[in-house]
Amino acid sequence: MHFNMKEATEVLERTPQSLEYFLSGLSEGWLLCNEGEGTWNVSEVIEHLIEGEKNNWLPRLEFILQEGESKPFPPFDRYSHINERSERSFEQKLLEFKTVRKQNITKLKALIEPELHLDLTGSHPEFGTVKLSELLSTWVVHDLTHISQIVRVMAERYRTDVGPWKEYLGILKSNHDR
Amino acid sequence: MHFNMKEATEVLERTPQSLEYFLSGLSEGWLLCNEGEGTWNVSEVIEHLIEGEKNNWLPRLEFILQEGESKPFPPFDRYSHINERSERSFEQKLLEFKTVRKQNITKLKALIEPELHLDLTGSHPEFGTVKLSELLSTWVVHDLTHISQIVRVMAERYRTDVGPWKEYLGILKSNHDR
Repeated sequence: MHFNMKEATEVLERTPQSLEYFLSGLSEGWLLCNEGEGTWNVSEVIEHLIEGEKNNWLPRLEFILQEGESKPFPPFDRYSHINERSERSFEQKLLEFKTVRKQNITKLKALIEPELHLDLTGSHPEFGTVKLSELLSTWVVHDLTHISQIVRVMAERYRTDVGPWKEYLGILKSNHDR
Repeated sequence: MHFNMKEATEVLERTPQSLEYFLSGLSEGWLLCNEGEGTWNVSEVIEHLIEGEKNNWLPRLEFILQEGESKPFPPFDRYSHINERSERSFEQKLLEFKTVRKQNITKLKALIEPELHLDLTGSHPEFGTVKLSELLSTWVVHDLTHISQIVRVMAERYRTDVGPWKEYLGILKSNHDR
């Protein structure tokens, strides 16, 4: 086990700004391409990250602190951002992710005393008992999985353009979570 | 086929700064972890990206412009950074990547006239005939594949920490290019 609050927070703090640097100002070709029907483009991934900030990570953490295992987490719709299309520009979405993440990290630091809280448990509707440290670890890896998805979606766009080099490009061999 | 110079350059320009934002100041735990024996940590990935800037992309592009298919590309050692350990700090490596990439993009823009040069061909020692546009597309996807590697290596560190959530985290299912 490697989780600790300081290192986890380091990643959570960096993700939105890094994605803003990488994605802001990119041509629509990069932002609107996807991996085929039913898959997300880069803009939809950012919407999903915003949704997680609002309805998943902090709410579940507060639920554990308040309810423990007495009640299961309220359900969370992982596809809600797809059903509730918004009219925000892509730059506005990046800014919203950055803003809401910053607020959540401030709340996280105020709420959690690592020595006291990391072993608290909650009840996941599917998994049963889960630890608060597992929820926080998952928040971090969820960032990493969606950064990975973003670059994979973009790489897919050049699948034929790279010609014979695709043999050397591991990212074009991966389709594990399409 | 989707390649065009403007969009490709957008990605090449953003990678070093984005990685600097994401990685600069991270704890050593994140920078020195890897996926097991014989795999690279984050710092080694940055060394590999620097190596590519110096010995792979621009040199091969210039070779195509000068030699066409008359001679195969000089060999390029993809593992040279592993054999030539340097004493630079991690922050110095990030800065070097940013600096050398910036110089290379300036050269790229000076050397290449898309209407004239994209269909020029060279001779790859393994693949045979390759197009200049394929080399440039590969440069872009190579950035994306190593960003993907960096976040995958980091995610691996929390494999057990996430508990039952690993079912939902695609990044922990991928081991295609270890």
